[in-house]
Amino acid sequence: MDILKRKLVLLALPAMIHWAANAQQNIVKMTPVNFAQVQINDKFWSPRINTVTNITIPVCIQQTEVVTPRIRNFEKVARKQGEKHEGIYFDDSDVYKALEAIAYSLKNHPDAKLEAKADEWISKIAAAQQPDGYLNTYYTLSGLENRWSDMEKHEDYNAGHLIEAAVAYYNTTGKRKLLDVASRVADNIDSTFKQQNRHWVSGHEEIELALVKLYKATGKEKYLDLADWYLQQRGHGYGRGAIWTNRHMGEKYCQDDVPVKEQSQIEGHAVRAMYLYTGAADVGAARNDPGYLKAMNNVWEDVVYRNMYITGGIGSSGSNEGFTVDYDLPNKSAYCETCASVGMVLWNERMNLLTGNAKFVDVLERSLYNGALDGLSLSGDRFFYGNPLASDNNYQRSEWFGTACCPSNIARLVESLGNYIYASSDDAVWVNLFVGSSTTVALKKGKVQLQQQSNYPWNGNIKMAVNPVSKLNFPLHVRIPGWAVNQPVPGETYQFTDKADSTFTITLNGKPAKYIMQNGYAVITRDWKKGDMLSLNLPMPVRKIKAIDSVKVNVNKIALQRGPLMYCVEQVNSDQEKQSYIVPENTAFNVAYDQNMLNGIVTIKAQVPVLAPTDDGNGVKTAQGTLTAIPYYSWANRGKSEMQVWLPTRISSVNIKANNHDQ
Amino acid sequence: MDILKRKLVLLALPAMIHWAANAQQNIVKMTPVNFAQVQINDKFWSPRINTVTNITIPVCIQQTEVVTPRIRNFEKVARKQGEKHEGIYFDDSDVYKALEAIAYSLKNHPDAKLEAKADEWISKIAAAQQPDGYLNTYYTLSGLENRWSDMEKHEDYNAGHLIEAAVAYYNTTGKRKLLDVASRVADNIDSTFKQQNRHWVSGHEEIELALVKLYKATGKEKYLDLADWYLQQRGHGYGRGAIWTNRHMGEKYCQDDVPVKEQSQIEGHAVRAMYLYTGAADVGAARNDPGYLKAMNNVWEDVVYRNMYITGGIGSSGSNEGFTVDYDLPNKSAYCETCASVGMVLWNERMNLLTGNAKFVDVLERSLYNGALDGLSLSGDRFFYGNPLASDNNYQRSEWFGTACCPSNIARLVESLGNYIYASSDDAVWVNLFVGSSTTVALKKGKVQLQQQSNYPWNGNIKMAVNPVSKLNFPLHVRIPGWAVNQPVPGETYQFTDKADSTFTITLNGKPAKYIMQNGYAVITRDWKKGDMLSLNLPMPVRKIKAIDSVKVNVNKIALQRGPLMYCVEQVNSDQEKQSYIVPENTAFNVAYDQNMLNGIVTIKAQVPVLAPTDDGNGVKTAQGTLTAIPYYSWANRGKSEMQVWLPTRISSVNIKANNHDQ
Repeated sequence: MDILKRKLVLLALPAMIHWAANAQQNIVKMTPVNFAQVQINDKFWSPRINTVTNITIPVCIQQTEVVTPRIRNFEKVARKQGEKHEGIYFDDSDVYKALEAIAYSLKNHPDAKLEAKADEWISKIAAAQQPDGYLNTYYTLSGLENRWSDMEKHEDYNAGHLIEAAVAYYNTTGKRKLLDVASRVADNIDSTFKQQNRHWVSGHEEIELALVKLYKATGKEKYLDLADWYLQQRGHGYGRGAIWTNRHMGEKYCQDDVPVKEQSQIEGHAVRAMYLYTGAADVGAARNDPGYLKAMNNVWEDVVYRNMYITGGIGSSGSNEGFTVDYDLPNKSAYCETCASVGMVLWNERMNLLTGNAKFVDVLERSLYNGALDGLSLSGDRFFYGNPLASDNNYQRSEWFGTACCPSNIARLVESLGNYIYASSDDAVWVNLFVGSSTTVALKKGKVQLQQQSNYPWNGNIKMAVNPVSKLNFPLHVRIPGWAVNQPVPGETYQFTDKADSTFTITLNGKPAKYIMQNGYAVITRDWKKGDMLSLNLPMPVRKIKAIDSVKVNVNKIALQRGPLMYCVEQVNSDQEKQSYIVPENTAFNVAYDQNMLNGIVTIKAQVPVLAPTDDGNGVKTAQGTLTAIPYYSWANRGKSEMQVWLPTRISSVNIKANNHDQ
Repeated sequence: MDILKRKLVLLALPAMIHWAANAQQNIVKMTPVNFAQVQINDKFWSPRINTVTNITIPVCIQQTEVVTPRIRNFEKVARKQGEKHEGIYFDDSDVYKALEAIAYSLKNHPDAKLEAKADEWISKIAAAQQPDGYLNTYYTLSGLENRWSDMEKHEDYNAGHLIEAAVAYYNTTGKRKLLDVASRVADNIDSTFKQQNRHWVSGHEEIELALVKLYKATGKEKYLDLADWYLQQRGHGYGRGAIWTNRHMGEKYCQDDVPVKEQSQIEGHAVRAMYLYTGAADVGAARNDPGYLKAMNNVWEDVVYRNMYITGGIGSSGSNEGFTVDYDLPNKSAYCETCASVGMVLWNERMNLLTGNAKFVDVLERSLYNGALDGLSLSGDRFFYGNPLASDNNYQRSEWFGTACCPSNIARLVESLGNYIYASSDDAVWVNLFVGSSTTVALKKGKVQLQQQSNYPWNGNIKMAVNPVSKLNFPLHVRIPGWAVNQPVPGETYQFTDKADSTFTITLNGKPAKYIMQNGYAVITRDWKKGDMLSLNLPMPVRKIKAIDSVKVNVNKIALQRGPLMYCVEQVNSDQEKQSYIVPENTAFNVAYDQNMLNGIVTIKAQVPVLAPTDDGNGVKTAQGTLTAIPYYSWANRGKSEMQVWLPTRISSVNIKANNHDQ
């Protein structure tokens, strides 16, 4: 079979095999290439990273240190003058997350003044640590005798973020001070609970994944043991009577009703769930324990198949900041917390590393470019806590939040974007995201320099220079996104309305490349040599997505996707009346790059039927109007405006508004 | 001037003089005729009272005694076995309010079994009283040492409802047991605070009005002194640091930021405000203190002129269960707690008695027939906590509430309706409401038997037999409702779109009666004799109300009123598409009594333009459809359905819905 024929056969297959069940899961396929080894030079992402460095992180510092009492609480502990704690019991974590973002930023953009600020904070944090290693300003200021008495009070959540910050800062600067503080915090928890066989359920998961990071940074197995211990505490009723009784959400709210390895249904608070499953995947990988992976796979399918928005956002209800029932995915009231999308990135990265399956990166990419990125304004100083899929002109970004988890979370994610692009195994290289960047991957047999160049996500032409130090035979796995092979998302819930030709092409040094498809990757195995140039072309037509009827709110609606981006219609730049257009399924779309709009975006435009009142206000006339759709992540950067991701294809009923203030 | 000419002159005047400022307010004009002296025999109200007796009160008993632990908390106190309090700290009050409703019911319908149940409860309550008189199951079970440490914990709110129940039960049965318990509770409060010059701000007002009732029942001036003391505690910062600091609503939430006599703006929690002002009016009347009346008049104008819904409901926001800013009167999210409308009835009754001005009864009548009555289902066993003016098909009545203030509140109001019909002064008789009933009013000069007969609110023909024991000269004040003289509500906010002929007529023994208008009353002064028959005819055309533009949500909308009733359109019995009709201002209406609909109502129907999708779903066609409006109080008795009180007169924009589940 010549190459061309083989390719044609393969082209027919990917949609079938892309999500094929992996009958036997092997534990740990790949190691991520750390962002510190990745130099990003990308037209889309580099400006966003710079904005986080120059705007978002200073905002986080200002809010943490000046506007709110978060840093002052640490100073009060050190002063020992009986001053009162201000704010909420989990506010320490915002300091740690800002510090973690700073650590990543210092790697991307070394900055002595910023590092000095970080060192100053670290000194204040260290000075607030108690002689036994305990570190928590809320309990230290309001009564140490009450510590560890209420599982909901986020003591180990705070500790987890301290550990993450400490590891990040140590990795960037080599300075051990905060790492030592964090180690003593972990030691104190270990001796308080695990060593005494005292049961404890963490009310807000986070420490599990952090302890795995601490284990990797220090090499101390006890931290991995403690992470596993935390996982094993759940689902046995140990929290009952202490915290979950009398709380209307109960144990389900924090995934404490079923042991982790037996979990199969997503439930409760979305961020808690994401952090738990990230930690469980980490422990499963480090322990080579398939029990966690099996559970994670089941829960993942429940999330992605039935409980995920098309933006990659999760958690439909604000009342529990989490999940309700399958297919309950309202658009206007969608909660879709920014932190939950960040959690989706974290968890799906782990699942991809464990399985070598690209479907997890498909979800990661969707959450990253849509659900998560929407949380940060283009200006870098305004934030969304929730990210709805429709708005009635009454929702806008905030400068900050009382519970301020989201700003520093999106900051640390953007600054550490390099973590998610490349991975390696002993003898193979993986390319997961299409971000202009270069790195060097060390395989067992030798080093390979990789360089990507593209105008992604606006364009699917990706050039990849593959430069082994010397000629080297290895398989290069290049992810072929699900959306490029007719499958927007794993599962039946969302489908493209038409099966477009999925004519992605791969050429090597100008000629069709020989590859096989494996778990969503095009795998090119050959003797690679210096100067090899791979070209991947992922066509980006405008694709219309329909949801299955079970998602009742989206019946008779379509959503528009182009490349990895979901689009929305924002009234501010459309000439149609508010939410009065329809987008029949046969609508033809035009795309154009507009460098002046929203820092440069590709817009999608179409002529569509638009309804407007007659002059006398007694009837309605239909006209043609121009519909303009913009990337979802870019909405709400021009004041309040109506917005819809899911667009009506037909009219089933009409609501009259008598004025602009109808309520 | 002959009678007819005089009448014609007067007919032109009422609209001008109806709300004329009362330059010099005299304290205490009238005494209400107690409901126990009023026999109601009314086609509209008698069935409602019977339903409360037969259904609502048994539901309250069942919920209080069996389903929830409210009575059990009292039993636990008596057992002294260290059992824990269940429920919320204000749950005792629900027992007392149910008992108060039972007391009124026993007067209307003597029932030995029900009285035995009340006596059983009273024994349990008495057994829970502490040796010093303190009575509160929450603190007694959870730590008496903490009592009176938190002004928000409703200790005196509970005490107030105990006192009201005790006075009601004593008045009905003559039994003193609960009255003695309540007196000792009041004595305990008096000695704990007032006698010790210890400051205390009641977090939820109620005890003030209750103490005035206790004063009247016992004749003991100390209770009136204590009520006045409670009023005087407010507005001096006495609560600061104890409760209001750190609570985001602060002192405004419970009207504690300004001394009561200096208050002029309505603010904070609506029910708290209503109970406070009722108590202040009571104390002002009993003390002959114009300071309270002046403040009450100012606050009243702020409520009625700028912050009241056309249903007589108040409190637009659920977040503080109260007031926001002037003219912020959203329809769908209107809170309009049932209890707040009950409070409007109580307060406006007091204001009327103090001033002799019928405008207060106009507001009372509006709140009673609309905002309050809406809180109770026709079946008597379903309740609204909030009473919005529009619904998207997602709101329905509940069987009960965790905070269960509303069910027993509407029950006690309906059972004591007789309180609001008649009043007297030394030498005059007042008729305030049009309810089929009879009573005997004792004037200084002699007794007068009155008998009303009508089909109100469906019809404005009211017959009133006036039978003095012997011939007697006195003025009979018959309220002429504002709506009958072209003024739906005091103030500029709501106006009828057209000034209909306000041709109300009064005939006496078949001939035009001679009367003068005074403060909203037609005053007929003559030698009354046995067999005199007065006929009042209040025409009831369908009236269209417009709000001023400051109420932005109601621009280009009208509301329909007929008689005292506000109407609404409920989708369930209309053939139009959901919220897709307009009601042009020149719409002609037909009214008809339908005895089979909703226990018998007058419907308002009209042919109006209705929009519907074209068959292909790509456009909209306009047709004529039948709009059916029903009394607001009667909606939500046939399952969930879209509902609107304010109806669009024109289309300003169109919202497309793609399906029935659009969210």
